[in-house]
Amino acid sequence: MTEQGSSETEDRKDDHIRIVQERDVETTGTGFEDVHLVHDALPELDYDAIDPAIEFLGHELSAPIFIESMTGGHRNTTAINRALARAASETGIAMGLGSQRAGLELDDDGVLESYTVVRDVAPDAFIYGNLGAAQLREYDIETVERAVAMIEADALAVHLNFLQEAVQPEGDVDGRDCLAAIERVAADLSVPIIVKETGNGISGETARKLSAAGVHAIDVAGKGGTTWSGIEAYRAATANEPRQQRIGTLFRDWGIPTAASTLECVAEHDCVIASGGVRTGLDVAKAIAVGARAGGLAKPFLKPATNGPDAVIERIEDLIAELRTAMFVTGSGSIDALQRTEYVLQGETREYVEQRTSSEKQLDS
Amino acid sequence: MTEQGSSETEDRKDDHIRIVQERDVETTGTGFEDVHLVHDALPELDYDAIDPAIEFLGHELSAPIFIESMTGGHRNTTAINRALARAASETGIAMGLGSQRAGLELDDDGVLESYTVVRDVAPDAFIYGNLGAAQLREYDIETVERAVAMIEADALAVHLNFLQEAVQPEGDVDGRDCLAAIERVAADLSVPIIVKETGNGISGETARKLSAAGVHAIDVAGKGGTTWSGIEAYRAATANEPRQQRIGTLFRDWGIPTAASTLECVAEHDCVIASGGVRTGLDVAKAIAVGARAGGLAKPFLKPATNGPDAVIERIEDLIAELRTAMFVTGSGSIDALQRTEYVLQGETREYVEQRTSSEKQLDS
Amino acid sequence: MTEQGSSETEDRKDDHIRIVQERDVETTGTGFEDVHLVHDALPELDYDAIDPAIEFLGHELSAPIFIESMTGGHRNTTAINRALARAASETGIAMGLGSQRAGLELDDDGVLESYTVVRDVAPDAFIYGNLGAAQLREYDIETVERAVAMIEADALAVHLNFLQEAVQPEGDVDGRDCLAAIERVAADLSVPIIVKETGNGISGETARKLSAAGVHAIDVAGKGGTTWSGIEAYRAATANEPRQQRIGTLFRDWGIPTAASTLECVAEHDCVIASGGVRTGLDVAKAIAVGARAGGLAKPFLKPATNGPDAVIERIEDLIAELRTAMFVTGSGSIDALQRTEYVLQGETREYVEQRTSSEKQLDS
Amino acid sequence: MTEQGSSETEDRKDDHIRIVQERDVETTGTGFEDVHLVHDALPELDYDAIDPAIEFLGHELSAPIFIESMTGGHRNTTAINRALARAASETGIAMGLGSQRAGLELDDDGVLESYTVVRDVAPDAFIYGNLGAAQLREYDIETVERAVAMIEADALAVHLNFLQEAVQPEGDVDGRDCLAAIERVAADLSVPIIVKETGNGISGETARKLSAAGVHAIDVAGKGGTTWSGIEAYRAATANEPRQQRIGTLFRDWGIPTAASTLECVAEHDCVIASGGVRTGLDVAKAIAVGARAGGLAKPFLKPATNGPDAVIERIEDLIAELRTAMFVTGSGSIDALQRTEYVLQGETREYVEQRTSSEKQLDS
Ligand SMILES: Cc1cc2nc3c(=O)[nH]c(=O)nc-3n(C[C@H](O)[C@H](O)[C@H](O)COP(=O)(O)O)c2cc1C
Ligand SMILES: Cc1cc2nc3c(=O)[nH]c(=O)nc-3n(C[C@H](O)[C@H](O)[C@H](O)COP(=O)(O)O)c2cc1C
Ligand SMILES: Cc1cc2nc3c(=O)[nH]c(=O)nc-3n(C[C@H](O)[C@H](O)[C@H](O)COP(=O)(O)O)c2cc1C
Ligand SMILES: Cc1cc2nc3c(=O)[nH]c(=O)nc-3n(C[C@H](O)[C@H](O)[C@H](O)COP(=O)(O)O)c2cc1C
Repeated sequence: MTEQGSSETEDRKDDHIRIVQERDVETTGTGFEDVHLVHDALPELDYDAIDPAIEFLGHELSAPIFIESMTGGHRNTTAINRALARAASETGIAMGLGSQRAGLELDDDGVLESYTVVRDVAPDAFIYGNLGAAQLREYDIETVERAVAMIEADALAVHLNFLQEAVQPEGDVDGRDCLAAIERVAADLSVPIIVKETGNGISGETARKLSAAGVHAIDVAGKGGTTWSGIEAYRAATANEPRQQRIGTLFRDWGIPTAASTLECVAEHDCVIASGGVRTGLDVAKAIAVGARAGGLAKPFLKPATNGPDAVIERIEDLIAELRTAMFVTGSGSIDALQRTEYVLQGETREYVEQRTSSEKQLDS
Repeated sequence: MTEQGSSETEDRKDDHIRIVQERDVETTGTGFEDVHLVHDALPELDYDAIDPAIEFLGHELSAPIFIESMTGGHRNTTAINRALARAASETGIAMGLGSQRAGLELDDDGVLESYTVVRDVAPDAFIYGNLGAAQLREYDIETVERAVAMIEADALAVHLNFLQEAVQPEGDVDGRDCLAAIERVAADLSVPIIVKETGNGISGETARKLSAAGVHAIDVAGKGGTTWSGIEAYRAATANEPRQQRIGTLFRDWGIPTAASTLECVAEHDCVIASGGVRTGLDVAKAIAVGARAGGLAKPFLKPATNGPDAVIERIEDLIAELRTAMFVTGSGSIDALQRTEYVLQGETREYVEQRTSSEKQLDS
Repeated sequence: MTEQGSSETEDRKDDHIRIVQERDVETTGTGFEDVHLVHDALPELDYDAIDPAIEFLGHELSAPIFIESMTGGHRNTTAINRALARAASETGIAMGLGSQRAGLELDDDGVLESYTVVRDVAPDAFIYGNLGAAQLREYDIETVERAVAMIEADALAVHLNFLQEAVQPEGDVDGRDCLAAIERVAADLSVPIIVKETGNGISGETARKLSAAGVHAIDVAGKGGTTWSGIEAYRAATANEPRQQRIGTLFRDWGIPTAASTLECVAEHDCVIASGGVRTGLDVAKAIAVGARAGGLAKPFLKPATNGPDAVIERIEDLIAELRTAMFVTGSGSIDALQRTEYVLQGETREYVEQRTSSEKQLDS
Repeated sequence: MTEQGSSETEDRKDDHIRIVQERDVETTGTGFEDVHLVHDALPELDYDAIDPAIEFLGHELSAPIFIESMTGGHRNTTAINRALARAASETGIAMGLGSQRAGLELDDDGVLESYTVVRDVAPDAFIYGNLGAAQLREYDIETVERAVAMIEADALAVHLNFLQEAVQPEGDVDGRDCLAAIERVAADLSVPIIVKETGNGISGETARKLSAAGVHAIDVAGKGGTTWSGIEAYRAATANEPRQQRIGTLFRDWGIPTAASTLECVAEHDCVIASGGVRTGLDVAKAIAVGARAGGLAKPFLKPATNGPDAVIERIEDLIAELRTAMFVTGSGSIDALQRTEYVLQGETREYVEQRTSSEKQLDS
């Protein structure tokens, strides 16, 4: 996910994909296990007329489901991106690319194709690019526009992954001036930008800063799903870096649980994507009930993608059917209605939210 | 429990009974595990004088226990219904029939007998019929009266089972206009109507609508007992329908826990039956303490019923003895007194109820 | 513990002792696991000067520890009572006898000796007799005085055990007029009376009635220790009484947890003994911190008693040393000080007490 | 940790070290598991510029990490102290010595060297001495100054370990007049004093008394790490002292959890060290977020110390790297900033703190 603009980046990308496929890289505790939607025994709806479509940054999506930013930047990933893009295109949902840094910095047609394949097979889908916040700081706006142009992106995701960088021995751990860079790009870029975490969540305070900086959407990517600290701990073990392995393991579970992060962000921004451990259409429904515009999944799409577009489509249709079922039994004919459905918060997530809400109140005063 | 008015219905009924008998079709978490009745060390009562009788829709029942709607519509179920009805009759409790759709739509004496046997062996018992809300919408009032007449019903239960329908590949998932149909039948039918769920519970909001529609009683049939999503997941597996199996499994635990649903409904209606995972006379006592008029059980009666009336009577007498013991040690000489006994709510059920109560307050204002 | 005034009583007593010794007859969850005394790192006390003595109903006890009512009424229990009484005498703590009904109703010197042995070996100890509330109702005051005289009792415990009676096939389940009988005996008897439960606890409401009836002390005997429902379930199994076995098992855990019951009772009476699952001197300390005057134990003394007085003394000295240690590290030089020490309530017990306190408030208003 | 001023002390010290190394002497439940720091996805900091240095009692420390008081007083411990001191010196953190009583009372060069070695190898480090509160009471100020001079101490830690003393058969259990002695030494000694527990924590009330007595710092040494009751239980088992073994085991978990104790103490004193079960740099970060000035660890340094200075340095650098990572991802460039970072309290620690805070409020009024 991170890269130093060399073929080193390419190899790391390969490492990451392999670790994600072979090791246990998921945590638990998104907080959605503490969110209970209230059953509506009398939905007064026709299931077949339920419409999960949303408008997102001016585009119509058939369902509030995002294939989260994952890959690109290595020839091996071309097939994965082709499958994901074709599936996004056929089902009408959004898809994010993995970091485009390698595409901007390496002069290699094979690498480039791992990105461009996406727009080739999905001319009309909502596709968004990806760069790290640290890159924004270094690139001028023309370079950022090249990333957009590379895939005719509908939007650009800017990822925040400072914990991962801190666990990587070679990580870029200078976090200064990123907010200013984000603000600049948000103002000048030809497409809207989505700021996203990568598995540790976004707090209300950060969401407030991002809102003020003019960011068009926030993707929380909270705790409970893929853990990049965990992934880097495996890499550090292989590289015989015991201290980094130790830190990666210690921070494996670090972050704001996705449900809590979503609740914090929706108080500050009106276009929030909930991701990080979202695994079913029911999770998507819960995310929307607590205020998100959509839910995103990364890892669950990786294995189907290696099996081709049909497997990805199958998975998306599962998710949509699960979501529609949740909509049906909460009496929600549309995503707008689902956003207003009743829910109950329990356990640790309730404690988390109660305390954060009262301390946020203190911040406001 | 659902049926498309053909012999397909008959076969499905058979499938269901078999699955219920052979597989794990029960969830946990009715919420009664979080309800603690307060011991009265000095009950100042004669156990033998404790009277668990109630008045229900104008009839006297010897105890606040319902044999919930289960079966009928297949020749194989005649013996089951005969045993249940004889037991209800001898012990003086209420009994519900399974859905009568097959009885109305099929022209088959064997099928019909599976219903009529009930009144034959229990001329004086409180027996109530059963139709789906979707059927009410389609039938005119004369057809509904035929269902009543079929068994000289004392009341008609109208079941809501939209989640089950959504899990069934062949399910009827049009939920529109059911409330209006219920209102119409409640006004016009010759006997009172009981609206019931089938394992996912009824919320306060729905109870309010049902009250306004003139429904005479509500049976919550909440989460924690028999799970129809779970049952349909098994059927889907057999039918090689992986998506439906997946959804059935995902929603296996869906619903409002029975104790919470009871607390929500009693705030909106004064005649509430608590069912869904009620398994002992102590559960019945708890249900009444939190405000229900009676408790109902379905699955626990199925196996005894296949062994004949005596086994069912034995089971009912167990339940009554358990209930009377709970009445004794809470110092409750009557069901009215039991309804006023002290209780404590803990754990998740307390969280659930606290939040729903405060949000209901918001709804009211 | 119960008896019908015949040698049947004697046999049952024997059954009970055997079951208590051989089977699992203890529950968990006294609530003391949720009570945390606050450490005092600077106690400013000399451990050797800590004085755990209390005054109890006009007598001085060396420590606030009661050997709870257990046995008598069978020749086999004479040795047990001798050991307990000798230990009580040597250590200066209080001892209760088991029910004296057999002693009053049977004309048998061996049976009588099982009681009288206590005063023989412990001429100066605080010894209290025991009768059931149901007996008080039947006996005139002279008969009750005979029970007192039998052992020159310093007080009389009146036990409430209606749940046990309800589980016993042959139980006395008429609970009427017990309060009036208690009030009469409290007023007329030559010695004070202690009303005690036997493992299911006493609520605030009951404590209030007992206070008004002039009872001199209340022994909560709450949930969390020996379970008489459980014991009777074993007896019912042997006697082939499946329904009673079922009820005994269902109500095995019934009752108010000892810590919660203590908190409820101390709000209504100023002389409360906490018992039911008290197992260590630390439990005794917690009981006192939440407001009890003393803690009592039954089952833990049974096995030592079968090994003779020294084993019982050893056990009592263990308890006192544990209690003194708790007093030391809470900076409590006396039982009075311990009663004022800081504590924290957590978990289910906190929930229990919070709700009961707020509902008691409603009762008051 | 305790000593009677004879070679008996020396042997016990040896016993203790051996038990700590060979047996399970750690409890769980520091409360830090319930403290959740809030992730800052946009730290706007350069990791390399993060400065974990603190000022402590007028000295600059490179990081807020204390090697807690452990050993000395036996020739075998010289090597351990040498390793710890060298590591403290090279990394710039603070180190406490074990109790100096043996050094003051035994006339033995080998014993003395086990202390003096520390200053020999760490001429500039912040090193603090150690005496028990009971000793302060017995020694005149000149004797206490000898302990300071022995190692040219920068401060003196006074330990409170009354629970341990109560568990030891030979313990000194007279706790009187310790506060006065502490007050006297705090006023007269040439260096500041730190009052510390040894694993059971310090309450708000005690912290208030210590503040009033002029103590310069408080080290909570709360529950959750090394348990001296547990250690003494092992010793009692070996010494065939069943009652002491029983008490040690019963009080194994006794005490105020470290996080709760820290929160109580920081309300009363502005220089608090959190210790007792601190195991990682993330624990140190949490301790600081809830208000501590620094975190201390004892047992985790023991094994590395037996392997020499490099192993200890390695461990310290791990801790610092973990702490810096926590600072980075909470956006805290300095320890001051970390003290203001947002956190959430959950579970038992939240319950503990809520109740203690409200009762403290009562104390104040
Ligand atoms: C294999 C893989 C590669 C990823 N690469 C990127 C990336 O390049 N850029 C990015 O912003 N996030 C990346 N992510 C993070 C995801 O976009 C997402 O935020 C995170 O994995 C949480 O979602 P999940 O639990 O559904 O996997 C990647 C995730 C995975 C699993
Ligand atoms: C075998 C079986 C058949 C059922 N059939 C019906 C039915 O036809 N109509 C209906 O309203 N409910 C039906 N139910 C649902 C029950 O009435 C009840 O609401 C639900 O099972 C929860 O109760 P339980 O947990 O005690 O089984 C059936 C339940 C079972 C177990
Ligand atoms: C063997 C045994 C016999 C008992 N007999 C009596 C009795 O005769 N009268 C009575 O009031 N309680 C009796 N009890 C109840 C105890 O006094 C006590 O209230 C109860 O056992 C809870 O304490 P424990 O958990 O420490 O055993 C008996 C208890 C035991 C274990
Ligand atoms: C081997 C060992 C020896 C100790 N000796 C002393 C001592 O002499 N004086 C003292 O104040 N504390 C002593 N302690 C207690 C520690 O300073 C510390 O307060 C306690 O162990 C909790 O920290 P931990 O959980 O990190 O071990 C000792 C601890 C250990 C493990």
